[in-house]
Amino acid sequence: MPVNLTSPEFAHPIAGVRLGTAEAGIKRANRKDVLVMELCAGAQVAGVFTTNRFCAAPVTVAREHLASGSAIRALVVNTGNANAGTGDAGLRDARDTCAALAGVLGCAPEQILPFSTGVIMEPLPVAKIAAGLPAAVADLREDNWLNAAQAIMTTDIVSKAATRQVQVKGATVTVTGIAKGSGMIHPNMATMLGYIATDAAIAPALLQDMVRDAANASFNCITVDGDTSTNDALMLVASGQAAVSLQQAGDVGYAEVYAAVRDVAIELAQAIVRDGEGATKFMTVAVEGGRDAAECRQIGYAIARSPLVKTAFFASDPNLGRILAAIGYAGVSDLDVTALQLYLDDVLVAENGGRAASYQEEDGQRVMQQSDITIRVVLNRGDAAATLWTCDFSYDYVKINASYRS
Amino acid sequence: MPVNLTSPEFAHPIAGVRLGTAEAGIKRANRKDVLVMELCAGAQVAGVFTTNRFCAAPVTVAREHLASGSAIRALVVNTGNANAGTGDAGLRDARDTCAALAGVLGCAPEQILPFSTGVIMEPLPVAKIAAGLPAAVADLREDNWLNAAQAIMTTDIVSKAATRQVQVKGATVTVTGIAKGSGMIHPNMATMLGYIATDAAIAPALLQDMVRDAANASFNCITVDGDTSTNDALMLVASGQAAVSLQQAGDVGYAEVYAAVRDVAIELAQAIVRDGEGATKFMTVAVEGGRDAAECRQIGYAIARSPLVKTAFFASDPNLGRILAAIGYAGVSDLDVTALQLYLDDVLVAENGGRAASYQEEDGQRVMQQSDITIRVVLNRGDAAATLWTCDFSYDYVKINASYRS
Repeated sequence: MPVNLTSPEFAHPIAGVRLGTAEAGIKRANRKDVLVMELCAGAQVAGVFTTNRFCAAPVTVAREHLASGSAIRALVVNTGNANAGTGDAGLRDARDTCAALAGVLGCAPEQILPFSTGVIMEPLPVAKIAAGLPAAVADLREDNWLNAAQAIMTTDIVSKAATRQVQVKGATVTVTGIAKGSGMIHPNMATMLGYIATDAAIAPALLQDMVRDAANASFNCITVDGDTSTNDALMLVASGQAAVSLQQAGDVGYAEVYAAVRDVAIELAQAIVRDGEGATKFMTVAVEGGRDAAECRQIGYAIARSPLVKTAFFASDPNLGRILAAIGYAGVSDLDVTALQLYLDDVLVAENGGRAASYQEEDGQRVMQQSDITIRVVLNRGDAAATLWTCDFSYDYVKINASYRS
Repeated sequence: MPVNLTSPEFAHPIAGVRLGTAEAGIKRANRKDVLVMELCAGAQVAGVFTTNRFCAAPVTVAREHLASGSAIRALVVNTGNANAGTGDAGLRDARDTCAALAGVLGCAPEQILPFSTGVIMEPLPVAKIAAGLPAAVADLREDNWLNAAQAIMTTDIVSKAATRQVQVKGATVTVTGIAKGSGMIHPNMATMLGYIATDAAIAPALLQDMVRDAANASFNCITVDGDTSTNDALMLVASGQAAVSLQQAGDVGYAEVYAAVRDVAIELAQAIVRDGEGATKFMTVAVEGGRDAAECRQIGYAIARSPLVKTAFFASDPNLGRILAAIGYAGVSDLDVTALQLYLDDVLVAENGGRAASYQEEDGQRVMQQSDITIRVVLNRGDAAATLWTCDFSYDYVKINASYRS
């Protein structure tokens, strides 16, 4: 079950962004599996995508359409099929999906961005998706984020949405986002799709910086299983309907709006980990006192990815030597292991290259019983830090992934 | 259960190498947990050790004793406790263990090499080990390799030994080895201990080259869970009792003796994977046609480490898109994914960036039912290749590692 996470009950609408869903029967009947997100004229869109060389066909097409400079009118997302590892046929299918929605909305195919999530290396059932589009368009409304969050789920147990409002010079700016993902989760980025929209007006280059920074602070700090998906995408929409316009990072209100976008992204990213496949515990891995952020991330990911660490947390067993082992093999070749401290929440576990003299097994056991736990490593060799989020590794992870296709 | 692997029934003795075991009650009563391997005068020893920065105390001490140039008289191995993450106290305990055995054998402590395997970050029970040493020494005999193999097991289900004989100019050279390990297995090296001995005489520098090359061809080509242990060691002993003496790599007989050592090492390394924690399938990952061996290994390990790939093999589900995803995120940034082919045994699965036109799901399913499977990736961009061995990821992996300490 998701770790301290329930389905969202409310999300502010974003003026200028309408959402509609449909049941297209892509993989199973009677579930929402198509989402259309329609944008008002003048809306700006920026995004970041997977670094996987086997990137999915819709990622290629979405990148092309963004790069073409077309005014983006809508995004279309299907679940149940990733349209990845599908070669030239996959590219045709992604373009055909755009053309189908363009036909319904009366715009050019280049004004549509396509996204897919689900099983890899199966042909995309374009005809089913196309047949579902009119219903999704008929369903379009601004107050529809929670249904949209449901329509993009795959192995997710709960849907994910986050919402914020900030005041800028007396005007209200709203930020709302949804995401999906619970397996094949590792940066850059998680197997995940994320869509965040704001009603502020934001210049294109600034919007691109904002989505990159927000991704680096959120979705690029999580791992469930170390697998980087073929389909990851985080999109940021600025509809420009609010009375706040941002041209550059120094503008009044930029800091507040960016913080709202980043916080929505972090809440969504953490929700993905809390709903990680089979997760029973949510772990924050904080590495401090490093020479640079890169080595902090390297050590953090060695811990966060280790199946041995993750199974020990599943068992609530303070078998904390496994964390030391992971720190040791992280690849920081000049690391002095006798100089660092390891904490579990506030409990000092290890220092001077071994178990801390003050450490009591019952203190470790008490912390391990919690569902939210912080692993803190203090390297004592610099001022840099990095924080990552991960979950434990349970029977159910294996069960879910051994049976996902069937 | 181990994949196509049973306990060894025979191992040739090595003249000049005597082995003895004892039940010292380190972690549990009534099981062999101490091994002494005594070497004849003039025997040479070389080894390779873990690259983990949190290397265990016995690794540090064994390296020191080897580097000191002392004539090594014996190796001592305990299971049940790794003496890792134990700081200065751990170093004292490892030295005390050497001193205890030196006292029984009547040699200097620097002539002993210590090894430990088991749980991390617990104090080594030196008194129990010392109390067990006289019984192990009383048990010393050349024909004792199979008992020795049992005495070093931790979560291993079956013991591991391999043996070869080769003829050099009418003389017989024998090579016998034992190993342990089934979790925390990833190069460099596996969580594993390996001891190989030959009766050939081999010059020290040549012996060091031989053990390095043999490790690179065997133990550095396997992964079970991606965790690199704190205690790994592969030791190679040359007793010099056979009528064959090797001074340099060009000598008559070197190729044959090296091949025997390498084959013993490969058989032991594969046995570790076949007995991987919870393993139900043994997978060979062969990556060919790369620009260099490094990129072939990089892609091979991305596949071999992926929890999603490993759970799909556990399920016998040809969800082969997960292999494409792993190839894509392996980090070879200029990889052209449309130029490669993916085979499952002889079945062509993917080419031109997607599923091969000739691929039939039932062919994939047939291969996935097997317990030994080869995943072959042909990159078509050079002449380099690398072969790795791994196993699948099952419920039992989680079960074993969630309960290992208790």
